[in-house]
This record gives sequence, structure tokens and C-alpha cells, in this order.
Amino acid sequence: MATLSAGPEIERLIQLLAKLPGLGPRSARRAALALLKKRDMLLEPLSAAMRDAAAAIKACEICGNLDTVSPCSLCRDERRDAHLLCVVEDVADLWALERAGVFRGKYHVLGGALSALDGVTPERLNVTSLLERVRHGVDEVILAMNATVEGQTTAHYLIDTLAASGVKVTRLAHGVPVGGELDYLDEGTLSAAFKARRTS
Amino acid sequence: MATLSAGPEIERLIQLLAKLPGLGPRSARRAALALLKKRDMLLEPLSAAMRDAAAAIKACEICGNLDTVSPCSLCRDERRDAHLLCVVEDVADLWALERAGVFRGKYHVLGGALSALDGVTPERLNVTSLLERVRHGVDEVILAMNATVEGQTTAHYLIDTLAASGVKVTRLAHGVPVGGELDYLDEGTLSAAFKARRTS
Repeated sequence: MATLSAGPEIERLIQLLAKLPGLGPRSARRAALALLKKRDMLLEPLSAAMRDAAAAIKACEICGNLDTVSPCSLCRDERRDAHLLCVVEDVADLWALERAGVFRGKYHVLGGALSALDGVTPERLNVTSLLERVRHGVDEVILAMNATVEGQTTAHYLIDTLAASGVKVTRLAHGVPVGGELDYLDEGTLSAAFKARRTS
Repeated sequence: MATLSAGPEIERLIQLLAKLPGLGPRSARRAALALLKKRDMLLEPLSAAMRDAAAAIKACEICGNLDTVSPCSLCRDERRDAHLLCVVEDVADLWALERAGVFRGKYHVLGGALSALDGVTPERLNVTSLLERVRHGVDEVILAMNATVEGQTTAHYLIDTLAASGVKVTRLAHGVPVGGELDYLDEGTLSAAFKARRTS
């Protein structure tokens, strides 16, 4: 990015905004301008919201979810089935499943996926606390990793690691996404959908 | 967006992040998570950068550019040709031209483009100050509006408005973008490129 003549403050703001996922250098510049043009309506409230969130939000000591309380409201919710444990890579995945409203058990957030490239070893994920939880009355562990190389490597690792505990371990089904067109799907997905075909 | 169980602080942070150009609800959620996960490395520095930029950056009283000083460093730069005035819609456009390094005159930032839909009338743009500047030793006004309906409407309006002053008014050329493939260009661009063809 060429240096602007607008001063180091804008440069620094753009550089930090560009670190947000989803913002490249170009959109970071647009975001910086939007912030500076709408100081009262956007910059000040966002700055306050960031400060408030940083002060209020903590990681749940049990599952790793982010909430204002620890244990988080999901872990505290007695209506949720504590015998079912859904393991996700990230809080974003937990949110996605909650939006879908498909799962009424408890969660466990690993905090990432195994990656030799990025140096993410099992010790850097919340695996020890997972094994600890599994020892106390969990009937089924649902591995809801991403269908990426890292996610599937992590799932395989967890299947091996959980084998000794004797707990039932399941994984999300692969298949054609609802609304998906076959023509746009990769061969791996099509192959998985074929193998897992059901009589209707 | 479904309500999360993570507390109103995260909700509010996501809602405000989603107002940044380039961030939708989904990427705003990812950005909020990234901020909360990297508090020391991202949230705190970004919060400080926003505060610093808001305190340091002001709109130039002459051209409308954003800078730490007013008049801005471009308006103060005596090596720039004050007889050439390039009119842009937005500071982002000024930055884009500066990155290209094609123009060594002065700028004038309108602060938007005429839009009946959004209620942007000439009174809401920096037109009066433009006319005032044109009265004092400007030889050529280069209209560098976006090639959108709003941008071209604005250009037409300025051409009419500047006619009385007798100043030379030019516009950016339309044509095939460098590196552009004809197959991907719209008919308007191709038509303009044909009409403006040159002997080589």
C-alpha cells in the first residue's frame, strides 16, 4: 500500500483495520474513511462497544465459549442435555449451530484446529479439558469440525484420543448442502453424498 | 441475525462492525470474535488508533481532504500546480489518484455525488467552495467523478454550474481498463473505447 499523505494516524488505523478478517487493504481504507466521516454515529459508538465488550466478555472456564459470565449461559442452562457434547473448532461455529437451533446439548470449543503449518499442536487446543469432561457422564461426543484438512485431521486425532474413554463418538454427515446445485459441488462432496444415500 | 446467547455487548459490537463498508453480518461476527480473541494484539491497538485518528484528523478547510493539518499537506504543497484543480467525490478517490501518482495539481473533495434517491442535493456537496476557488486563478477543472449514474449526474451539474466562470473543464477518459479483457467489459465501456479510439 502506497503511503498516504494523510498522516500516520490514518495509516495506523488502516493497518489495524486490515487485520480484521474479511477486510483487505482496500476495504480497510474505506472503513477508516467511514469511521472518520461518521465520528459521532460510528467511530465513538464502536470504540465504546469494543471497550465494553473487552471488559464484559470472558471465555467460559468449562466450554471455551465467549459470554459475559463464566460458566457461560449455555453451560448454566439446565434444560440443555449434559450427556451430549458437541465439539467445535471455534466460537463462530458454536454460534452457527445455535443459529440453526439443531442442538440442545452442551458445547466444547477447541480454540482452533490442528495445523502443522501454523504450528497448532494438540497442547494448544482445549483437549485436556475435553477429556476431563468426557470422564463425567457424557454419552456421546459429536465432532462438528470444519470439513477442511485441518478440521478432519483434528477429528481423527480426537477419535483416537477419545477411543480409550469408550464414549460414543459421532461426526456430522457429509452431503449436498440444502439448496446446493450438484453442478457446483466438488467431487468429494458428491462422492460422500452418494455413499451416504438413503432410501426415500 | 438470530440473537446470540453471548450477551448484549457482543451483539452491539457486531451490529456496529456491520456498519463498516465491506463488512456484512457474517464477517462482522468474525471480526468481533477476532477482536475479542486478540485483545492485546488487535482490540486495544485498534481502539487506541481510532481514538488517535479521531483526535488528530480533520477535514481540510480548503479542499475537504482529511489530514492532521488544515489546510492539508496537499493544499500546502507549493510544488503542486494550483492552476489545476481535480474534483473528486470522496477522499477515497483522492487517495486512489495519489496512489496512481498521475496528478500534481490541487484537489477538491465534493463529499459525495448528487443522488435524488439518497436526498443528496448540490447544497449538501462542497460546490460553493469549489466555485469560490475557481474564481481565483484556476486554469483547468478536471472532473474525476465515478463512472456511475450519480457521478455522471454530478459531473453534468458541475459542467453547467462552472460554464459561467469560463474555466476549462475536462473529464477523465472512458475506455478499456489496463489489463482488462473485452469479454468482461460492459457495452457502455466498449462503446466509449471505440468512439475514443486513437491511431497508433
